[in-house]
Amino acid sequence: MSDIKAAVPLHLNGPVLLQQLRALGEIGADPVAGGRTRVALTDAEKAGRDQVVAWMRELDLHVQVDRIGNIFGTLPGPAKATSGQLNEVPRPLMMGSHIDTVINAGALDGCYGVLGGLAVVRAFRDAGIVPSRAITVAAFTNEEGARFHPDMMGSLVHAGGLPLEEALDAIGTDGARLGDELARIGYAGEMTPGTLVPHEYLELHIEQGPVLEAEGLEIGVVENLQGISWQQITVQGNANHAGTTPTRLRHDAGYVAAATVAELRRIAVESGTTLATVGTMTFEPGVINVIARRAVFTVDMRDPHEQRLAASEARLTEFLKKIAQEEGVRISTERLARFTPVVFNAELADVIEASARRMGLSYKRMTSGAGHDAQMIARIAPAAMIFVPSRGGISHNPREHTDDDQLVRGAEVLLDVVAQRLGVAQQAHLPQ
Amino acid sequence: MSDIKAAVPLHLNGPVLLQQLRALGEIGADPVAGGRTRVALTDAEKAGRDQVVAWMRELDLHVQVDRIGNIFGTLPGPAKATSGQLNEVPRPLMMGSHIDTVINAGALDGCYGVLGGLAVVRAFRDAGIVPSRAITVAAFTNEEGARFHPDMMGSLVHAGGLPLEEALDAIGTDGARLGDELARIGYAGEMTPGTLVPHEYLELHIEQGPVLEAEGLEIGVVENLQGISWQQITVQGNANHAGTTPTRLRHDAGYVAAATVAELRRIAVESGTTLATVGTMTFEPGVINVIARRAVFTVDMRDPHEQRLAASEARLTEFLKKIAQEEGVRISTERLARFTPVVFNAELADVIEASARRMGLSYKRMTSGAGHDAQMIARIAPAAMIFVPSRGGISHNPREHTDDDQLVRGAEVLLDVVAQRLGVAQQAHLPQ
Repeated sequence: MSDIKAAVPLHLNGPVLLQQLRALGEIGADPVAGGRTRVALTDAEKAGRDQVVAWMRELDLHVQVDRIGNIFGTLPGPAKATSGQLNEVPRPLMMGSHIDTVINAGALDGCYGVLGGLAVVRAFRDAGIVPSRAITVAAFTNEEGARFHPDMMGSLVHAGGLPLEEALDAIGTDGARLGDELARIGYAGEMTPGTLVPHEYLELHIEQGPVLEAEGLEIGVVENLQGISWQQITVQGNANHAGTTPTRLRHDAGYVAAATVAELRRIAVESGTTLATVGTMTFEPGVINVIARRAVFTVDMRDPHEQRLAASEARLTEFLKKIAQEEGVRISTERLARFTPVVFNAELADVIEASARRMGLSYKRMTSGAGHDAQMIARIAPAAMIFVPSRGGISHNPREHTDDDQLVRGAEVLLDVVAQRLGVAQQAHLPQ
Repeated sequence: MSDIKAAVPLHLNGPVLLQQLRALGEIGADPVAGGRTRVALTDAEKAGRDQVVAWMRELDLHVQVDRIGNIFGTLPGPAKATSGQLNEVPRPLMMGSHIDTVINAGALDGCYGVLGGLAVVRAFRDAGIVPSRAITVAAFTNEEGARFHPDMMGSLVHAGGLPLEEALDAIGTDGARLGDELARIGYAGEMTPGTLVPHEYLELHIEQGPVLEAEGLEIGVVENLQGISWQQITVQGNANHAGTTPTRLRHDAGYVAAATVAELRRIAVESGTTLATVGTMTFEPGVINVIARRAVFTVDMRDPHEQRLAASEARLTEFLKKIAQEEGVRISTERLARFTPVVFNAELADVIEASARRMGLSYKRMTSGAGHDAQMIARIAPAAMIFVPSRGGISHNPREHTDDDQLVRGAEVLLDVVAQRLGVAQQAHLPQ
């Protein structure tokens, strides 16, 4: 390790990171509506991939693409002879996230984690330091799920949680087959998914929530991630005349849907930890003086504790049973997604916390409310996440914003954590 | 009156009435979806008008069309010399309703009142009886309001409640101007609206509600009509991430809309007489994991008592104020329609009740939940309505249905009431 100690201190190049975030944010931009749209495996997303790969090559990384289209750029560790064991594939320290977006998105969600990872690698390159272990930056396919289900698909396949063929056969909202689209844009790679098992995994991300900003904190040490339960609920009642049907004779699908939304708020408030959201709602036939025959809505419930999430789900089920009987309607529920809560690696979280403290940054240990690739990778490797504040908690929106200095500080924490894990001299990363 | 007493008994020709209902129901019919669509002043509705006018001419009625397109077919009373006063325009006994429909409608709503009126006139023709007062059958323009607002337009203009020019300038959902469409289909008549002020007005209609069927009754003696309050409510909140926004920091437009629907049910139940319906509801942006930024919904409230309707409206307003504050959202309301309750003429209702009783029919005095042309005509003349049962209370739907014998019985009651009012010998109308 004598060569490492002799190197110049690791320094994160903030201006390049910010410039790359802006440049990637221009790809797929809508000059009229604001925001950008790089939905997975579209032409715009291909352009984003090409740009990221070009930046990886500028850093002379070893670029690999697997069969689900995940992109990996690796800064090699010491020459193989020094790694000791012959038959072992060396496990890299991995950083990553995604560069696909929702429709009309901000510039930071996902991109910050990928380009933050490149910024860390750049610091090693600039300092001329060969890390004691390979460092890989990953850009996972289709994290958003805006076109192909499920979301977090690339990392899920990478972690062995979804068979490759099933993922390739996913049909998009536009009717396209994922495997065909991967081939069309030239990102159907040859590497078998899961080949590059990380030694450890770190993901830098904007919070996408209001907690850090509201509490005036600079860094979130993400130690766990909420469980997510998505359901679609269909209420079938009777369409009758609004003016002539006595209340007691109504089978009002709209009322039942609305009462369920109100009940979900009670469930959330009373549980203390569950979040419940109804983001979509349709009434049929949708006429002012006709009682709704049919209401369809979605329920998004989250909780960091599996038992509490299950209890909230059970309360909802119980309520639906009761109100279906009272109102004389039929209710059917379809499970759209269910992820149990993820507890990240405590040692990694401790290291992140120690870095933030040593750098003089305000921080808190917190829960991720949103889903991230890190939750999939946590199945196969120790993982943790670093959050920076999101202004107003706004994300998936052109108004998504984090101040430049907060973005740079978050990447500096990531660099410091990587340096710690690879045994690079600490004093280089103290505040200057 | 000696000529009347000498006449053969008045007899309602049920088969012709039923045949005309079926024939009119074929105009605008959709052989695939079922139902028929004769939205006001479309080609299909013109075809329906032409048919009704042809039937009026078959009965040798004097057909007049006014400037808003209302059609009147009049069976003259005794020759003018016998009417006594020179400068008085004789006021006819009027029966009527409408033949325009909603989209994908049943065959009875409105048509039953017009063709029932023609059946009454036919009974006079068949019996060779000249009535002691002219009898007019009216088909009013645009009762449904499916294309042009407001609904009940023709009768409202006829009653002087809406200036003719304003009605002619109404723009339809398809962008067409009502006056242009009237001219296009050839029903922009020359008569000044309101010329034919009825002496009394009777409207035969299907109930469009479940009350008569549920109580096993044959005739509804409609003595009043609910007040109607229509509002559109817009809730403006903030779109935030469903997984990261704590409940206390939410400004959830969807939740506020849903809580309002639940509150409206409480208002209805607690008032005892108010009906409240939310038939339309939209959430924006309408994404499963995004808190609704905006919710737009309509409120249909009805009550036969003006004070209670106003009280229910006030409770809603109070609730909106409170919840807007609690959730931190902006709420705006737009009044779409407001009709005060109508009390029909008690003497006419008594005559209807007496006819039903004398004919051995089961009946109840009741409130009309729906709006009808009769409520407009009630502004200028004594008016009342006769209801027959609607199967399942279903209307505005291809499944709208009333049994043939119930349809004929309702028209027989109408004939009997007309005979009573015109002093025709009663024994002709006793059950045989």
